[in-house]
Amino acid sequence: MKIAIVAPSCGLKREAAERVAAIGAARGDCELAIHPQCFLSEGHFAGSDAARLAALRETMGDPSVDALWFARGGYGSNRIAEAAARDLPVAARRKLYLGYSDAGFLLAAFHKAGLEVAHGPMPQDVLRAGGEAAVARALDYIVQRSDSALETGLDGPAMAFNLTVLSNLLGTAIAPDLSGRDLLIEEVSEHYYRIDRAMFHVTGDEGVREVRRLRLGRVSDVIENEPEFLTDEGEIVSDWCERSGIAFGGQADIGHDAGNKVVPFGPSRL
Amino acid sequence: MKIAIVAPSCGLKREAAERVAAIGAARGDCELAIHPQCFLSEGHFAGSDAARLAALRETMGDPSVDALWFARGGYGSNRIAEAAARDLPVAARRKLYLGYSDAGFLLAAFHKAGLEVAHGPMPQDVLRAGGEAAVARALDYIVQRSDSALETGLDGPAMAFNLTVLSNLLGTAIAPDLSGRDLLIEEVSEHYYRIDRAMFHVTGDEGVREVRRLRLGRVSDVIENEPEFLTDEGEIVSDWCERSGIAFGGQADIGHDAGNKVVPFGPSRL
Repeated sequence: MKIAIVAPSCGLKREAAERVAAIGAARGDCELAIHPQCFLSEGHFAGSDAARLAALRETMGDPSVDALWFARGGYGSNRIAEAAARDLPVAARRKLYLGYSDAGFLLAAFHKAGLEVAHGPMPQDVLRAGGEAAVARALDYIVQRSDSALETGLDGPAMAFNLTVLSNLLGTAIAPDLSGRDLLIEEVSEHYYRIDRAMFHVTGDEGVREVRRLRLGRVSDVIENEPEFLTDEGEIVSDWCERSGIAFGGQADIGHDAGNKVVPFGPSRL
Repeated sequence: MKIAIVAPSCGLKREAAERVAAIGAARGDCELAIHPQCFLSEGHFAGSDAARLAALRETMGDPSVDALWFARGGYGSNRIAEAAARDLPVAARRKLYLGYSDAGFLLAAFHKAGLEVAHGPMPQDVLRAGGEAAVARALDYIVQRSDSALETGLDGPAMAFNLTVLSNLLGTAIAPDLSGRDLLIEEVSEHYYRIDRAMFHVTGDEGVREVRRLRLGRVSDVIENEPEFLTDEGEIVSDWCERSGIAFGGQADIGHDAGNKVVPFGPSRL
């Protein structure tokens, strides 16, 4: 199985690429093709919009590639997501697409276009404490669709997003159709007041109110609020669920960490 | 003219209240009624949601009050905006409502409910360098609807919002109807990548795409991007306008500073 790694947001660190390549080689059940675009740099991004889009479209259209694995998050995939999902070649429809965080813009756009996508660990995660387990889990899912890689609470169609990414997707041409699905969210490096504001926004959306239930993954590296916010992520999320009539489904095993489990989005149309 | 000051988001500093009260007393053309709720504190907020909503509703319903002046921004008015705009008493319809930043949630909700609202300086702005001019401008507008307080580029119906506040309003029950209006935006204390992401979100909204044109106020205290973002707010905003088919109308004289001009929202229905 050939897995292409491209970086639609920020650049992949060389050290991460080397360590992931070594893990792949040691497994022997997959060939990792790390696209040179992963190491481009143009300001914030892994190359210009055109360069990132070209690498994405090239690998999407390559019939020898079985899966596209997004190198890392950061910011920038939204700038090319709509174009990347347009006029898809047949080869693009015969692949799995895996990533999370900023790559959620692509997950949404690609799932809407009928592609097989899943929310889960990315190559750059190898640099986290215990990150090799995250990479192994992602590869287990990509190569074998291994059940052990999955979030354990999945009992119906689901989608998973970083909360801020979801907030910025709503109302756009690539907004996800969440109707009847479990929505799993996670967050990193935000203030509680921003998390509260994003929950106001997300739960205020009519489409989001059609979810089967909302589950909360981990919220890590919260930026200190001055003064103290008084409520934490669990209280914030359950409060907005209650206000908006959304069923709160408890915790989810996803987040910006090595424990981040895989959440396949399932069929585009239910 | 009686002007009530309430704090639907964060608390008003005593020093700001004293200085604004002195400015009001020296003018002699208005009575400033600073509601005690302005000095409440509950974590991030100027009192609980219930306390902030009660102060707001009390002053809205007070026939002796001619204008409500929001004390300051911060975060929190979204938590009570929908309730504040519900089942309005007649007295609430005979007032002007002025504020900006986080108070944009109230401007949107109240304007949608048919009230007279304007985007402009708030009492806490007196603490800025040159802030007395901002307070004088706000009072000139509240008391006299003075033309000299207005943003000079207004030549048709307009609305003004903090970009992040607008992004969080879209799709909610209190989202503004921007169709046919000039949209003026400003921002403070964000990274360029977040400004870029918010512009993706805002210009991706079908309703926003119906604006007459979009104009850019000041973007201040930008948080340093690592690595450098390469484009500034002018390039970011004109780029997203071009991508989304929105006419870019150039600069606007609004922002988180003492120069912030007043932008009345005009009639609720055009």
